[in-house]
Amino acid sequence: MTVTDRERDAMRRALSLARRGPRGLNPQVGAVLLSPTGDIVAEGWHRGAGTAHAEVAALAQLAPGEAAGTTAVVTLEPCNHTGRTGPCAEALIAAGVTRVVYAVDDPGERSSGGAERLRAAGVDVASGVLADEGRALLDSWLTVQRLGRPHVTVKWAQSLDGRAAAADGTSQWITGPAAREDVHRRRAEADAIVVGTGTLLADDPALTARRPDGTLYPHQPMPVVLGARRVPDDAAVRRHPLPLLHRDGENLAGESPNEPSLMAQLRDAGVHRVFVEGGPTIASAFLRAGIVDEILTYLAPTLLGSGAAGGDHPALRTLGVETISDQLRLDVASIERLGDDLLIVAAPRPARDASQEGTR
Amino acid sequence: MTVTDRERDAMRRALSLARRGPRGLNPQVGAVLLSPTGDIVAEGWHRGAGTAHAEVAALAQLAPGEAAGTTAVVTLEPCNHTGRTGPCAEALIAAGVTRVVYAVDDPGERSSGGAERLRAAGVDVASGVLADEGRALLDSWLTVQRLGRPHVTVKWAQSLDGRAAAADGTSQWITGPAAREDVHRRRAEADAIVVGTGTLLADDPALTARRPDGTLYPHQPMPVVLGARRVPDDAAVRRHPLPLLHRDGENLAGESPNEPSLMAQLRDAGVHRVFVEGGPTIASAFLRAGIVDEILTYLAPTLLGSGAAGGDHPALRTLGVETISDQLRLDVASIERLGDDLLIVAAPRPARDASQEGTR
Repeated sequence: MTVTDRERDAMRRALSLARRGPRGLNPQVGAVLLSPTGDIVAEGWHRGAGTAHAEVAALAQLAPGEAAGTTAVVTLEPCNHTGRTGPCAEALIAAGVTRVVYAVDDPGERSSGGAERLRAAGVDVASGVLADEGRALLDSWLTVQRLGRPHVTVKWAQSLDGRAAAADGTSQWITGPAAREDVHRRRAEADAIVVGTGTLLADDPALTARRPDGTLYPHQPMPVVLGARRVPDDAAVRRHPLPLLHRDGENLAGESPNEPSLMAQLRDAGVHRVFVEGGPTIASAFLRAGIVDEILTYLAPTLLGSGAAGGDHPALRTLGVETISDQLRLDVASIERLGDDLLIVAAPRPARDASQEGTR
Repeated sequence: MTVTDRERDAMRRALSLARRGPRGLNPQVGAVLLSPTGDIVAEGWHRGAGTAHAEVAALAQLAPGEAAGTTAVVTLEPCNHTGRTGPCAEALIAAGVTRVVYAVDDPGERSSGGAERLRAAGVDVASGVLADEGRALLDSWLTVQRLGRPHVTVKWAQSLDGRAAAADGTSQWITGPAAREDVHRRRAEADAIVVGTGTLLADDPALTARRPDGTLYPHQPMPVVLGARRVPDDAAVRRHPLPLLHRDGENLAGESPNEPSLMAQLRDAGVHRVFVEGGPTIASAFLRAGIVDEILTYLAPTLLGSGAAGGDHPALRTLGVETISDQLRLDVASIERLGDDLLIVAAPRPARDASQEGTR
């Protein structure tokens, strides 16, 4: 059965309902139930982890038996997984829904298979309806599912010759106002912002995302400080609108039986996008750990060199590159002029393994 | 008296004659003598330091008295200076030349004033004829006159994070073939190419300007090696078509009663353009000395960092920047993609002194 115009309209409505839910650990999902004549009889959306899935929220609006013969229009493939809530595929089957139309396949290893389960129960299933819009809505959540961790952007500012500061450690300002504005705009798109205690103690950053006039953007990244040293009681970050996460910087992404890695902890807190602001030790640690998806280098047209007495402040430190064949090659996505400065956006080139040979 | 079409034609001829002379210590100059009816009666050009100036070479083609009443069309203001040859202004006056047309004013402190001398003797003088073409021909020589030394380009290749090599010192290849081709093309436009003994001993460079197929460009830069260490007998640079200049790297541009600075020595050897290829110690020394006119940074999209055991190979070393207000700001002239690499062409921003305040 082909997808009708009314089902497409219902999908647009479901996408709009999905946006009412929070971006976080679970995907934003919306659902609409259509009567056999194509009228909307119920609506639902997912309100966040631990609450009903969108389909179940819509079904709950109807009296028992009332959903029989309806079509469920859902933005994401109904799940087939018993978590804190039961599998939605079962709920739809039990309610007597006879047709399911959805936008995006569920990428989860444990939760996918809903469409198959529905078909096995005799439900008519149509997939990929307004799939591009559905994927755009879930973009960062789908990235987390694919990576198994949040998306990581590492940012640093440097002189042309790769220094983050002059010999005596002074660095304000290497880059200009246009570069700083750009950084704040990007902070506002992140869910967490990470610095080391070194940067915290040296610069006392607020770690908020601010407009040029100093006001806060509506979305703020959660402040994360890594390192063993104490965060002072009067640190600016303590006045951040979101609570501070302070932990050591040892286990960024590894598997540990004792405590979750930083990446696992952030993922489980619903963080999709992490913005790592450094300094050099933290940026280098993320690069060494191989968990960097995007690199933003703000390059100022200036030279700093090292100090006559030995003071040297490279933008990056040890990366584990002992010889040239180990170099960490990048793919440059874009180069942009920001005032006098350059912004180079790049990504580490994926390691070439046998299975990829010839496909790139 | 306005400049006639025949005089302009004669200037074109004089410019073409000038190009027959060598680019070197003296300017390339051409001269044509026109009869009162506008016909060419003699031609000359300067064949290099120690030989006759162009005007005198043209006069020498005529029998005594034959130049009386002619017009001299010269690409550069006739000199007023007695060097290895007498002042051309006097020679023209003595020969009875009644009009002089020239393109470019003589910028020399000691040699200028020829036009004034000619006018004082009653000779009719017109200047600035085809001046743009004249300046283009003399571009690099005029630069040497203005700077009092050759024009200096410093080039280096680096990773995005400002390293010239991996921890173990390996660096072939950070940049790709397009960047290397560009370097060789620019070497072919230089009159001297400078490296330190460190680079010489590590890389054994030929210091020739080569096409991608390995053949030599017609113009080769003179190889210059700086440093106290010996140049091995079997070093590739010993097979360079031009003889090697090997001296210590102590006195790049200073005034010394004992020995001329490198810049003075190169200027007096007729070098207009110096291409400094490094490595880091030499590049930093030129920057510290404040004698860099152009910076070429070949930026490879790769990260190297420092080694776990401490090996660190920054593209630049000590620049004398002890605090951020001393930073060496650059004006970026262009940014170009060369294959995967970037070429950033920049120049040190002139120091702002009181006399410049408000003029920039």
